[in-house]
Amino acid sequence: MERKKALVGILMGSDSDLSVMEAAAEVLREFGVPFEMAILSAHRTPEQAARYAAEAAERGIKVLIAGAGWAAHLAGVLASKTTLPVIGVPIDSSPLNGMDALLSTVQMPPGIPVATMAIGKGGARNAALFAVQILAVADENLAARLKAYKADMAAGVLKKNEKIDPAVRVLEL
Amino acid sequence: MERKKALVGILMGSDSDLSVMEAAAEVLREFGVPFEMAILSAHRTPEQAARYAAEAAERGIKVLIAGAGWAAHLAGVLASKTTLPVIGVPIDSSPLNGMDALLSTVQMPPGIPVATMAIGKGGARNAALFAVQILAVADENLAARLKAYKADMAAGVLKKNEKIDPAVRVLEL
Amino acid sequence: MERKKALVGILMGSDSDLSVMEAAAEVLREFGVPFEMAILSAHRTPEQAARYAAEAAERGIKVLIAGAGWAAHLAGVLASKTTLPVIGVPIDSSPLNGMDALLSTVQMPPGIPVATMAIGKGGARNAALFAVQILAVADENLAARLKAYKADMAAGVLKKNEKIDPAVRVLEL
Amino acid sequence: MERKKALVGILMGSDSDLSVMEAAAEVLREFGVPFEMAILSAHRTPEQAARYAAEAAERGIKVLIAGAGWAAHLAGVLASKTTLPVIGVPIDSSPLNGMDALLSTVQMPPGIPVATMAIGKGGARNAALFAVQILAVADENLAARLKAYKADMAAGVLKKNEKIDPAVRVLEL
Amino acid sequence: MERKKALVGILMGSDSDLSVMEAAAEVLREFGVPFEMAILSAHRTPEQAARYAAEAAERGIKVLIAGAGWAAHLAGVLASKTTLPVIGVPIDSSPLNGMDALLSTVQMPPGIPVATMAIGKGGARNAALFAVQILAVADENLAARLKAYKADMAAGVLKKNEKIDPAVRVLEL
Amino acid sequence: MERKKALVGILMGSDSDLSVMEAAAEVLREFGVPFEMAILSAHRTPEQAARYAAEAAERGIKVLIAGAGWAAHLAGVLASKTTLPVIGVPIDSSPLNGMDALLSTVQMPPGIPVATMAIGKGGARNAALFAVQILAVADENLAARLKAYKADMAAGVLKKNEKIDPAVRVLEL
Amino acid sequence: MERKKALVGILMGSDSDLSVMEAAAEVLREFGVPFEMAILSAHRTPEQAARYAAEAAERGIKVLIAGAGWAAHLAGVLASKTTLPVIGVPIDSSPLNGMDALLSTVQMPPGIPVATMAIGKGGARNAALFAVQILAVADENLAARLKAYKADMAAGVLKKNEKIDPAVRVLEL
Amino acid sequence: MERKKALVGILMGSDSDLSVMEAAAEVLREFGVPFEMAILSAHRTPEQAARYAAEAAERGIKVLIAGAGWAAHLAGVLASKTTLPVIGVPIDSSPLNGMDALLSTVQMPPGIPVATMAIGKGGARNAALFAVQILAVADENLAARLKAYKADMAAGVLKKNEKIDPAVRVLEL
Repeated sequence: MERKKALVGILMGSDSDLSVMEAAAEVLREFGVPFEMAILSAHRTPEQAARYAAEAAERGIKVLIAGAGWAAHLAGVLASKTTLPVIGVPIDSSPLNGMDALLSTVQMPPGIPVATMAIGKGGARNAALFAVQILAVADENLAARLKAYKADMAAGVLKKNEKIDPAVRVLEL
Repeated sequence: MERKKALVGILMGSDSDLSVMEAAAEVLREFGVPFEMAILSAHRTPEQAARYAAEAAERGIKVLIAGAGWAAHLAGVLASKTTLPVIGVPIDSSPLNGMDALLSTVQMPPGIPVATMAIGKGGARNAALFAVQILAVADENLAARLKAYKADMAAGVLKKNEKIDPAVRVLEL
Repeated sequence: MERKKALVGILMGSDSDLSVMEAAAEVLREFGVPFEMAILSAHRTPEQAARYAAEAAERGIKVLIAGAGWAAHLAGVLASKTTLPVIGVPIDSSPLNGMDALLSTVQMPPGIPVATMAIGKGGARNAALFAVQILAVADENLAARLKAYKADMAAGVLKKNEKIDPAVRVLEL
Repeated sequence: MERKKALVGILMGSDSDLSVMEAAAEVLREFGVPFEMAILSAHRTPEQAARYAAEAAERGIKVLIAGAGWAAHLAGVLASKTTLPVIGVPIDSSPLNGMDALLSTVQMPPGIPVATMAIGKGGARNAALFAVQILAVADENLAARLKAYKADMAAGVLKKNEKIDPAVRVLEL
Repeated sequence: MERKKALVGILMGSDSDLSVMEAAAEVLREFGVPFEMAILSAHRTPEQAARYAAEAAERGIKVLIAGAGWAAHLAGVLASKTTLPVIGVPIDSSPLNGMDALLSTVQMPPGIPVATMAIGKGGARNAALFAVQILAVADENLAARLKAYKADMAAGVLKKNEKIDPAVRVLEL
Repeated sequence: MERKKALVGILMGSDSDLSVMEAAAEVLREFGVPFEMAILSAHRTPEQAARYAAEAAERGIKVLIAGAGWAAHLAGVLASKTTLPVIGVPIDSSPLNGMDALLSTVQMPPGIPVATMAIGKGGARNAALFAVQILAVADENLAARLKAYKADMAAGVLKKNEKIDPAVRVLEL
Repeated sequence: MERKKALVGILMGSDSDLSVMEAAAEVLREFGVPFEMAILSAHRTPEQAARYAAEAAERGIKVLIAGAGWAAHLAGVLASKTTLPVIGVPIDSSPLNGMDALLSTVQMPPGIPVATMAIGKGGARNAALFAVQILAVADENLAARLKAYKADMAAGVLKKNEKIDPAVRVLEL
Repeated sequence: MERKKALVGILMGSDSDLSVMEAAAEVLREFGVPFEMAILSAHRTPEQAARYAAEAAERGIKVLIAGAGWAAHLAGVLASKTTLPVIGVPIDSSPLNGMDALLSTVQMPPGIPVATMAIGKGGARNAALFAVQILAVADENLAARLKAYKADMAAGVLKKNEKIDPAVRVLEL
């Protein structure tokens, strides 16, 4: 069976980030958005990272997602080599709880934006959702699915109220 | 003369943020992307902020940019009411130098992403550029202009080398 | 048996906050103050959160308590829709140990105060105590019980001195 | 002319905090809530601070507001001696931009809550508003005025939109 | 057998701090300095804490050591009621790793110093050593023992070098 | 006229710290405690700093005060060479507002305490007061003056209340 | 068998740092660079630390590596006594996750540089690599091995891509 | 006159960093070490930055110094393309006072070290000194000059003592 052409590239700086970035892959699968994944270090494989970013657009990729910890430069390095939107996920793999990765990802200089998400797995999940939102700008079908997703999410939160003792639970939400 | 239909909405929490967010407007003007601006506080005008976000898509808006300082909730509040991509700009208007605005903007829970930029004016500039990158996903003309912009920017940096004493300046960059 | 009309509403952004916010419920039970609880996300159920806050006063609620982690907007969103006092509890559910939730809760702009408590379970406990203090402003009975509670607490601390080796324990406290 | 009996006490740790805490006084004047002010240091005048708090309730005070910088203990010290609600305002008078005052004020142990506001003048303003919200729990007149205040504030924010260039201003807010 | 009159008072805000402050007791025992211990909360037992400090000097106490976590006010409250030297030990019992306790202890306003030690058990140990150093200013015997202690400590560190592989160990330290 | 033998040594890492540490000198002059001052860098004049500390006790010095900014090692270096009490003053001369100096001064390892004061001029003032408190342990005259100083300070704070508008000033402090 | 003359000295402040600094030793072994190790505390063994640094150059040492936690002064103390390059490794052994050690190591005053690495084991590894890079400035053989090491590292990262599900793995890196 | 072949390359991310990095140039001039300077942005001129680093060694460069602010990636990007030692200078040009630049520079992953200096001008000065220390490993002449420089620096600090009032100045340093 042929592989569908990827629209989103999920990159990460180390194989230890794989379990975090898998949360992004999961969301893209839910939305049926074809994607590809690679481990590419801004510092240890700079040529490959630069080449991947430089060639991504012509290979049909529309959005890049990059997760990294410590002095997380991966998203910035990719952004420096493409005009595709790059979404950064700071990962809390250092003793500083991800504050280093957050600042290294978000504080980009004027001219080279990186769309930064929350630290860790929740951020990875949101990175994929944001990629879908970008694609949905020109894809009504995806836009409709995002609305449904949002409604489901709201319903899911309300449903969780059943965990509260009925004697004090708010009934008319 | 008729106003062109806005594709990007630039929102900010207070009129004191206007000089910062003007940097975003400037970039959109450079790229010829029609936009609109409003001062809307997540906390002081919650109905208007929610309604603006809820109706933005059907009014033809494709991307929202929201700048705010302190416990910066504006981007998150907008994101909660739309599936359009929302870009957040933390503004350093409090004594904590924008660290409060940064964390309030970026640490969004799973399900409601906000694409966070750097603190302050540089972040506002990048927010607009990122909005253009999103629009360029389905607009080859914009994509081409982004590449030209990037090349100009590189040339501009190299040109700055003339400020260095020729006796020590690297000549062959 | 009929449910007593709630005077205090305890809200939280996620069911994972339930074990923390239960500490608030416990205190209100100790003081015999009727309350209700709900899971309502500022971002995932914005309509319900806004409506709950907007209608709370006419339903007889006097004080709101809101616990949330990450970019904790729940308390602020509630405060934007009511003039009832809103007490915020930052929860340390993110890698940043609750610093993100604290700043997102406390750094509210002028006009929309949120009374912020300490991070986590101790803060939830104090939120409920503070709600009782607010109610006690117009309820002498509650005021008297607060005094007794305070005296008991002091006695409890002094009693803990028995854990200290009698050879070095201060006897005349 | 006789002085009206104060319902709110505004305390501060140093005369250098006066210009910040004046913002609280201003709000109380707007709402016609009688108040009193004093400079009382938790560390330099501990007896007076403790006595003031201990006697406040019987003197008719309903709410205390305490502003302090550095290792800001004033609100906590007052709270230890009364069961009245105590609102704390961290002031950014040290080199650490008020982060020290914020943590010293908000991180109170279980049993002795301090309702903490934002750092600085905006926090002082909100402290007074929150005091009014507390008093409004049992004062319908004040509650009505709070609603009007909130509506005025929203109108004021919307009015600020006139500062935006009409060519890009959102018209239908 | 009669108890020796305490020269040092070790106070702590909660019985959960006992295992940390025990490190201070241990050092005083090593140096044969008589001490007493008590659990006294600045906020929950303010009268007792204030009275203890106020009467400590006349009871023969020469130095106070106070350990506390969160918004750690205990050392400051004691210092406000005595002119004896007060040594503060910030304890990392909150989610903020003791940064809150450190700033609450060290950032004292001019006029009321608290001699602050490192966070946690090491700080408790050092607090006791510092108390001995203070007493040694007027006690040559203690001063001599401090010198011996210091020499032993150096020897102990050098001895630890035996843990290093002899093939790479520096021999002539 | 002969110089009185110094009891306190005030050291600082750089001549740019002189205006800060002058605040310590002023307090010692007020109390009539003879002192000496020197600029000695832990890093740039390590021999002199080490020798000064090593010989201080036999020269009659009883307490050392050390102010430094950046990676402030001076107090620690002095403490490593003497068993006299060493008081550290972190100075906010770096872009990090003194947080670097604070942590470098206070987080000393077990065995070598440094009594750390608040950042900057207030800390320098308190360092001198604390030195007086140490000397007062064995000097009843100084102890009496400290009590008077404390009473004066309280009176001074109360006196500042005259700056408050009499219409709202608390009269019975 | 004779020991090869060490070119690199690896120092650490405590035997508890040994498992971290062993990562540096491992790298030097890989590169065949002879080294020596010692536990030397800046504060507890100041004479030995100072003498080691002062004599290192004449004993043939070319580079010093110093790992320490808390108020990490070891690297600075060594740097103050030698003109050899000193590399500092901040260790996260305190409750502040190594932020204290990082600032104490990196924020050195002008004149006495310490080349600071990342916090913890990764930093220790990099310290050794950087020492090799320094030695390679005048050793072509080492320079060639560094290039090979870098190539191996890149290959290692690429190889890790095999952990990714082949259905989404990027094949042409 | 022919230019001497540069041994050190001083790079910086923006022309606004020039006044900071000039401090490094000044030190190299003092030591007579030939150097070259360029403005090269990791993000805006990635090809040129990468090429510069890749070719630096064969052009005779021995050490690279890179100064940058915000999410300072320049040093890391250079280090990823060379095995020459790279020294990083974090610059405080963002609202976060250089904490972002510091963490982005120092927290490099294992395998690609960046020798990080203090934030700002002092760090730039130290970067050049450290470069000289590296070159001095194989250049006895430079090593001798470093020793002289260190002695001069010590003398300079001692000389500054003349600024202290002779009545309290320590005479026998």
